[in-house]
Amino acid sequence: MGFRKLTGPEMNRIPAEAIRGSLRHPVYLMLHNIRSMWNVGSMFRTADAAGIKKIIITGYTATPPRKQIDKTALGAQESVRWEYAADPLDAIMHLKADGVRICGLEIADRSRPYTATGREDFPLCLVVGNEVEGIDDEVLACCDDVLEIPQYGSKHSLNVAVAAGIALFELVRTVRGGM
Amino acid sequence: MGFRKLTGPEMNRIPAEAIRGSLRHPVYLMLHNIRSMWNVGSMFRTADAAGIKKIIITGYTATPPRKQIDKTALGAQESVRWEYAADPLDAIMHLKADGVRICGLEIADRSRPYTATGREDFPLCLVVGNEVEGIDDEVLACCDDVLEIPQYGSKHSLNVAVAAGIALFELVRTVRGGM
Repeated sequence: MGFRKLTGPEMNRIPAEAIRGSLRHPVYLMLHNIRSMWNVGSMFRTADAAGIKKIIITGYTATPPRKQIDKTALGAQESVRWEYAADPLDAIMHLKADGVRICGLEIADRSRPYTATGREDFPLCLVVGNEVEGIDDEVLACCDDVLEIPQYGSKHSLNVAVAAGIALFELVRTVRGGM
Repeated sequence: MGFRKLTGPEMNRIPAEAIRGSLRHPVYLMLHNIRSMWNVGSMFRTADAAGIKKIIITGYTATPPRKQIDKTALGAQESVRWEYAADPLDAIMHLKADGVRICGLEIADRSRPYTATGREDFPLCLVVGNEVEGIDDEVLACCDDVLEIPQYGSKHSLNVAVAAGIALFELVRTVRGGM
């Protein structure tokens, strides 16, 4: 009695247009000064899978359409809502005015585990930063909270797209009430 | 009162040799027929951060040292224990003989949520498969269990390295008793 992979139709895929208009989890993802388009595309794909509201692209992070983004986004650049703002502090100010809590994903002093959010923390914007430097200091200073993924190895770092995936799925689970 | 990133020494980095000899979480990761060395390297990095026991590389998945693996593993290819077995069924047989539960990461019939494991399921080997085809049918047939990451978007897929990261950190959290 083995397992059988589900086929596309069995998974009830939803068309991109329907997804864009549908109810999303009250989670935003801000990509500030991300260098690699591979990572940008990969985070679009994750954002689609996690059903989040919007990606906010800031600083020198590349925006779609770009061949290298599309290559790893695999169509998610069409289904995920996104906007670009050159200045991350501007974008944060607008999100805060809309009642969105700004949470950096970083290893910082006074950061709390990424598993420690509650439903009262939403709507929430997860902020990720540059692959090498992490989140810029002035952006980190604007965060209401910093979430940290525990590190049990020798390197104390994860690829930014992997880290964003770990945190986003946990946030979505929290907002869905642990499901 | 802003947040401040921790510096390297503040994070108490552990040298690679010490890590290799230290107690690890009873979690294995099997990479079967992974095409992209970027993904292999990224999963080495994640395996280091999650503190898992070993990576089992099977089929045509590339093994270190390879320039493209090292580029994304960022040194984790030195700290993470790994072995290569051409035949995944052979490797699975050996793991099962050691009492390791084999769990595919896939969308399949009778799969259960990746968040639904308990401490009784460990030691556990998470199996991931090819970027396009997923886990080979004959490997899937040998799995004791299939874990699934819920999909809320239009694509029903995640990058394999991102999916492995989401599942591994959840497994480590379970085995640590929810911490």
